[in-house]
Amino acid sequence: MHLDQPRNQLLLGTFVHSKSRREIDIFHNAAVAVDSNGKIAAVERQCSNLEVAKAHALAKLGWSVDDVDIYTTKESQFFFPGFIDTHIHAPQYPNAGIFGKTTLLDWLEKHTFPMEVSLKDLAKARKVYTAVVRRTLCHGTTTAAYYATIDVAATNLLTDLCHAIGQRAFVGRVCMDRAEINPDYYRDESTEAALRATRQTIEHIRAVDPAFDLVAPILTPRFAPSCTSEGMRALAKLQREGGFLAQTHISENTNEIALVRELFPASRSYADVYDQHGLLTPGMVLAHAVHLTEEEADLIALRRSKVSHCPCSNSSLTSGAARVRWMWQKGIEVGLGTDVSGGYSPSILEAARQAALVSRHVAATRHNGDGDQEDHERCKLTVEEVLYLATRGGALCLGLEDRVGGFEVGKDWDAQLVGLGRVADSGLREGEEYTANGHGSGPAVNSAVAGAGFVVPAFNGSDEGNVDVFGWESWGEILAKWLYNGDDRNTKKVWVKGRLVHARR
Amino acid sequence: MHLDQPRNQLLLGTFVHSKSRREIDIFHNAAVAVDSNGKIAAVERQCSNLEVAKAHALAKLGWSVDDVDIYTTKESQFFFPGFIDTHIHAPQYPNAGIFGKTTLLDWLEKHTFPMEVSLKDLAKARKVYTAVVRRTLCHGTTTAAYYATIDVAATNLLTDLCHAIGQRAFVGRVCMDRAEINPDYYRDESTEAALRATRQTIEHIRAVDPAFDLVAPILTPRFAPSCTSEGMRALAKLQREGGFLAQTHISENTNEIALVRELFPASRSYADVYDQHGLLTPGMVLAHAVHLTEEEADLIALRRSKVSHCPCSNSSLTSGAARVRWMWQKGIEVGLGTDVSGGYSPSILEAARQAALVSRHVAATRHNGDGDQEDHERCKLTVEEVLYLATRGGALCLGLEDRVGGFEVGKDWDAQLVGLGRVADSGLREGEEYTANGHGSGPAVNSAVAGAGFVVPAFNGSDEGNVDVFGWESWGEILAKWLYNGDDRNTKKVWVKGRLVHARR
Repeated sequence: MHLDQPRNQLLLGTFVHSKSRREIDIFHNAAVAVDSNGKIAAVERQCSNLEVAKAHALAKLGWSVDDVDIYTTKESQFFFPGFIDTHIHAPQYPNAGIFGKTTLLDWLEKHTFPMEVSLKDLAKARKVYTAVVRRTLCHGTTTAAYYATIDVAATNLLTDLCHAIGQRAFVGRVCMDRAEINPDYYRDESTEAALRATRQTIEHIRAVDPAFDLVAPILTPRFAPSCTSEGMRALAKLQREGGFLAQTHISENTNEIALVRELFPASRSYADVYDQHGLLTPGMVLAHAVHLTEEEADLIALRRSKVSHCPCSNSSLTSGAARVRWMWQKGIEVGLGTDVSGGYSPSILEAARQAALVSRHVAATRHNGDGDQEDHERCKLTVEEVLYLATRGGALCLGLEDRVGGFEVGKDWDAQLVGLGRVADSGLREGEEYTANGHGSGPAVNSAVAGAGFVVPAFNGSDEGNVDVFGWESWGEILAKWLYNGDDRNTKKVWVKGRLVHARR
Repeated sequence: MHLDQPRNQLLLGTFVHSKSRREIDIFHNAAVAVDSNGKIAAVERQCSNLEVAKAHALAKLGWSVDDVDIYTTKESQFFFPGFIDTHIHAPQYPNAGIFGKTTLLDWLEKHTFPMEVSLKDLAKARKVYTAVVRRTLCHGTTTAAYYATIDVAATNLLTDLCHAIGQRAFVGRVCMDRAEINPDYYRDESTEAALRATRQTIEHIRAVDPAFDLVAPILTPRFAPSCTSEGMRALAKLQREGGFLAQTHISENTNEIALVRELFPASRSYADVYDQHGLLTPGMVLAHAVHLTEEEADLIALRRSKVSHCPCSNSSLTSGAARVRWMWQKGIEVGLGTDVSGGYSPSILEAARQAALVSRHVAATRHNGDGDQEDHERCKLTVEEVLYLATRGGALCLGLEDRVGGFEVGKDWDAQLVGLGRVADSGLREGEEYTANGHGSGPAVNSAVAGAGFVVPAFNGSDEGNVDVFGWESWGEILAKWLYNGDDRNTKKVWVKGRLVHARR
């Protein structure tokens, strides 16, 4: 048997995924069978033990145990759906954490446009794009909706890298065809040139992945101020003809909103600008939506456009705090975006954590205003809700709800194996040990240690990260601990479409 | 020469510390000499290269190169002062991340008191306290101001562990002598019993560390509602007599403030309660201070009490957002606290990051109110300012400004070696490599890879964490990257009083 031949896989143990926004489903002694096309072929949930689960799954599918690769969760491990990043700017990754005291418009000019334009150097683009695809995979991101740059060759390179490294991706060449707003050094020469370049990137994706099975195009008018009316209308037409997704920004910052009002005096609102240009469709992902009015939210809900909530970016760029609960109540589907590098982190787990925290700032701020306290408390998002945003919510935003986001028969196996550290009874992390300048010794507590030299604890090679499981926690508590202190060390393995694309030793 | 004999040390390379709140001082080709007592004996800054720095330092002190241990920073590494955690509840560490949708008062009852009381089981206390001391050291916390529990034996165990493991600590036995507020199962039997127990923990620390050189007592009335007036007055007297530090909570949550108003009708404010009981002294560390009035802030400034800002906790428990800039303008010294487990993270780097983000929520909220925008923008804290809070600010809060927080002759060597990851030109992290099911191969970009089997990148043992340095960043940008994406993986070594207490392999 050739190593490179895709094989059937059998995943055994504990599985966790969202049942609904409010409910997490945790099932043990279970089996998920994944066929050689990467699709979930069977799910066995109600088993008395793993051997039974394994036998049931194999029998149901008529598979032989010799023909499957088997992965079994250990203690404090579980399978979880891969994360979905509904908004990330690949070329901005080197700027992660670099934003100073800027807000949106000066941040674009000072940090963002200079970095983006520099990636027309393809060696630099290869370095940056490889790093961001690899890094997000390490964090468990199995699907990413990328903004690239205006450059066709570099955008095509991003497509190639996603396809080769194995991340499910939407790749969008950014359209910036309005002369008086975009900087001279970084803009489309004309609307026609923008459209031609966009088509070239779509054709490249079609050549690499004809069915758009792993990598697909996404139309990307940067944001209303960057685009001419003609440009936006042309992209809307392209969307209708090609059935593509589209993505843009909306209502992130108050100065930006004022600029939109000035540039589009005939539109009643920011959302109305997109609506008037035919872009407010069910296939549109709107990032941020921090300052939407009631009317705008109603319009977005009516058009079934989606919102990418980017909490790290909300905080970093002093944009405000988007109100997820309120958007849900309006009927809008919401996913999470890292918004690298408006957001400082490439991790969707960090975005989920910050979504919970930012929702508490929404609640705390409203405490100071009118209305009863119970109403404000409802603004807060639970662990279950932010993990839903990170998986099924994102899938819905990107039209992938039938393909990824949970563990059901017929879906693709886009998943991560999560493992958390256990604290031993000694109080040390399992895998951690003491060495006193090379010769082992424990901490001599209660004796006079101060003069006894250096006792240096160190990891013996395995570093399980910052989540300390003591052993008495419920599974709900374990998930909360993962959300609040987890990082890429806890993402042990990552699969996309059944292919193992990342593994930690 | 015996291994356990403390030796002189020479640190060479790049050093970073705060010069002032606004300014970070970064010096290269420098040497810091640390004597066998752990004190900085010489600092050589203006050298043309490391050999010169080394020679100057040795010559100045008359040390032989054979008698010193030498540590040299590599590329993308620097020495930084150890972090100072001015507010952490050691017994609550197992609950990190577990708070659900609670706010302060129900969180205390649901999560906190049950955990704290359970640590009278000394085996459990040893496990938890070892874990929290080790974990905070891993994150670079060289000094911690701990709340323990009401239990004397467990509090003494925390003292022993800090002393043995080598963390500089203030250990406070919690006083909770008010019968009608504290739960029946977790309170002091009487004011006398509380005082007696407090004295026992102080005497234990004196026995372990007579000069309070590494571990010192800190008087700890939990917060005003937990304490009787007699109890608070007795602690204030003990403070005056013994010259101890003290710590408590203030104005974290609006319901808590209402409770204080109800319990202490004779006091004009929460701060006034402490002032009337003699506790508002220069040696008092007040945690939170989210909802202080102008008058309270003026009073605290007048009394020269300190504030421990706990931004993770502000967000987690929906407390609000403390206004650091405003407290500074009032003349109050501020440090950072993790407030484990009201705060979800034991890392002061995370607290610094969240201090920057929470300050942006202060700014954004005020945008929606009156006043000019520039005034609101001033609420935001810079990278330099939050790193100051994490080091010199904390030292000032704990009366240690002459001993730790920066690299000056005469100070103790409480420091960390920080190292960041470099991205190779391939886009992989240095130390990361590709293996295709065991046989190495790079990603075959631009070729039809989809059918070519599994290409699994993995770390070859060294994991440099999430900060990706591309090579073109300024040092200011590198520090920003560390602040926003750094974690304990970047803290390579930690020293307290010259003793190496943590090292990553």
